[in-house]
Amino acid sequence: MENFSTLHFLYAFIMLAGAIYFFYLSREPKGVPLYEYFLAITIPLWSGAAYLSIAFGQGVLKQSERTIYFARYLDWVVTTPLLLLALAFTAMIYVEKKNKTMLLTLVALDIFMILTGLIADFSTGYVKYIWYSLGVLALLFILYIVWYPLRWIADSFGSRLSIHYKRSAAYLTFFWVLYPTVWLLGPSGAGLTQQAVDVLGFIILPIFSKVGFSILDLHGLRNLEE
Amino acid sequence: MENFSTLHFLYAFIMLAGAIYFFYLSREPKGVPLYEYFLAITIPLWSGAAYLSIAFGQGVLKQSERTIYFARYLDWVVTTPLLLLALAFTAMIYVEKKNKTMLLTLVALDIFMILTGLIADFSTGYVKYIWYSLGVLALLFILYIVWYPLRWIADSFGSRLSIHYKRSAAYLTFFWVLYPTVWLLGPSGAGLTQQAVDVLGFIILPIFSKVGFSILDLHGLRNLEE
Amino acid sequence: MENFSTLHFLYAFIMLAGAIYFFYLSREPKGVPLYEYFLAITIPLWSGAAYLSIAFGQGVLKQSERTIYFARYLDWVVTTPLLLLALAFTAMIYVEKKNKTMLLTLVALDIFMILTGLIADFSTGYVKYIWYSLGVLALLFILYIVWYPLRWIADSFGSRLSIHYKRSAAYLTFFWVLYPTVWLLGPSGAGLTQQAVDVLGFIILPIFSKVGFSILDLHGLRNLEE
Repeated sequence: MENFSTLHFLYAFIMLAGAIYFFYLSREPKGVPLYEYFLAITIPLWSGAAYLSIAFGQGVLKQSERTIYFARYLDWVVTTPLLLLALAFTAMIYVEKKNKTMLLTLVALDIFMILTGLIADFSTGYVKYIWYSLGVLALLFILYIVWYPLRWIADSFGSRLSIHYKRSAAYLTFFWVLYPTVWLLGPSGAGLTQQAVDVLGFIILPIFSKVGFSILDLHGLRNLEE
Repeated sequence: MENFSTLHFLYAFIMLAGAIYFFYLSREPKGVPLYEYFLAITIPLWSGAAYLSIAFGQGVLKQSERTIYFARYLDWVVTTPLLLLALAFTAMIYVEKKNKTMLLTLVALDIFMILTGLIADFSTGYVKYIWYSLGVLALLFILYIVWYPLRWIADSFGSRLSIHYKRSAAYLTFFWVLYPTVWLLGPSGAGLTQQAVDVLGFIILPIFSKVGFSILDLHGLRNLEE
Repeated sequence: MENFSTLHFLYAFIMLAGAIYFFYLSREPKGVPLYEYFLAITIPLWSGAAYLSIAFGQGVLKQSERTIYFARYLDWVVTTPLLLLALAFTAMIYVEKKNKTMLLTLVALDIFMILTGLIADFSTGYVKYIWYSLGVLALLFILYIVWYPLRWIADSFGSRLSIHYKRSAAYLTFFWVLYPTVWLLGPSGAGLTQQAVDVLGFIILPIFSKVGFSILDLHGLRNLEE
């Protein structure tokens, strides 16, 4: 049970089930653009594969004192930009020419956030907290873009899109604020919680923030089109 | 002769010759879009550089029992998505607005296939075959897209494009099925063939599936435009 | 003072100041497209973060004889393609549909140049100079595209753009020729200069070629639009 293999296998199966469900939805897209389904399918598949490598004891680095789950960052560096793209595309769903600069800014900030987290996990002492703070700063910029420029775009297309966008953004914001909290309390950060709590946190959180988010987002978009 | 340096140098030269030949063709594009030439030139140059690093003994990891040619994956992770893009662009050659979701799906599946192969090469026991199977599964999805959605697009633009597309797709399919076969039989997989057979396989196969494919594809496209 | 930490911290602060300055300019874009500001802000932030990791002694590999600053390549592999994109977008500033094949060719050559430099830094003997020469060859192709195809595009939109483009291109060319020169003379190459000279070179050069270039380019573009 050292690697919590069973839990990680379970997670990979839930992700696979999510991907199959979104593929099933995509057969009858109900006016929602196919790239929204592409994102909803790719995110859990990638995340499931990353956790599979943890279940096999491969995506893990055992050091004398603690275990670094580096495969998590391999998961996040791909899936979190895609989640942001899904949310941004939702705001711009009626925009013919998407604002590419805004999309690129979100992706660049997000990758920066994940990489600083990775470096922080491998750092010690005060250096760990400097990298962590830089990552949190990037998250704050991301949340600013989500709640101001992107919300303005969604607002400009009527109250139905506006309500759906704000619900999706609130859902994502809630879980994305929990991530750095669990990280900070766990062995990657201050080490206040035990490894098991940390592992459980990073299994429950992504189920909600990945499959849960896509269910909320896709069904909202499908209702919009009706 | 441990690294089969001479063979790998020879491969790099053949790739360079291919790139120069496609550059020469691009000077008189005959109506074929420049991005097709860009792909045909970039693929052998990247592959040649990766094999050059093997020839120098750098892209290779010597373990107690066997040698892992990790530079092959560095080659494939770039060149195989580009080959798929070249084939997909051929199917969509008369489409003004390319289907980006389909292109992204192909690239995502392909990168997933190469990464699972890399992890499989570093794995042992049953875990190796799980990763390998995931990679083969991705290949099956790729071949489905190549032979159904992409073929339908090519078919809709008349028999001349349809014939050329099906010939290119059949050529690519034939060699792409050989890759995992050689991998599985060789030291990366079950270890039934000797290292020398494996090295030779991964020198002969890419000459056909890279330079050979681009010759077939580009000349076919150039004839179409006449 | 082994890592020249103070100098690298100072560099990170200058980059941060540059990014803040370009963000300030972007609030009143004066007709210059936002992606030009996005590039000018992203480049110094990324470079500053990379040098911060050197200042903390993390982006550095200490070998028996010498120190390899691998975080420099992590900086360059992202920032130098973005700098080339900024220059290319300047040439194409009045072009509605950017030539994507030309942009991709520049980015591909640039990434190839940086990766060969990285491999050269880890190589010894004659192999080092082969990789180095391949990188220089890629640089020559880049400079050809900058001074011929890209200049023709800029020329075709009147003398004001042409003059601004040629000034920016000359500035970039001057500093980009110095980079491989400092590299070759320093411990990464022939080892003719001391580590301190090398460190100082790779602090002064990027200040000019990153923040300096963006000041020149952005102010020129802002004047064009007046």
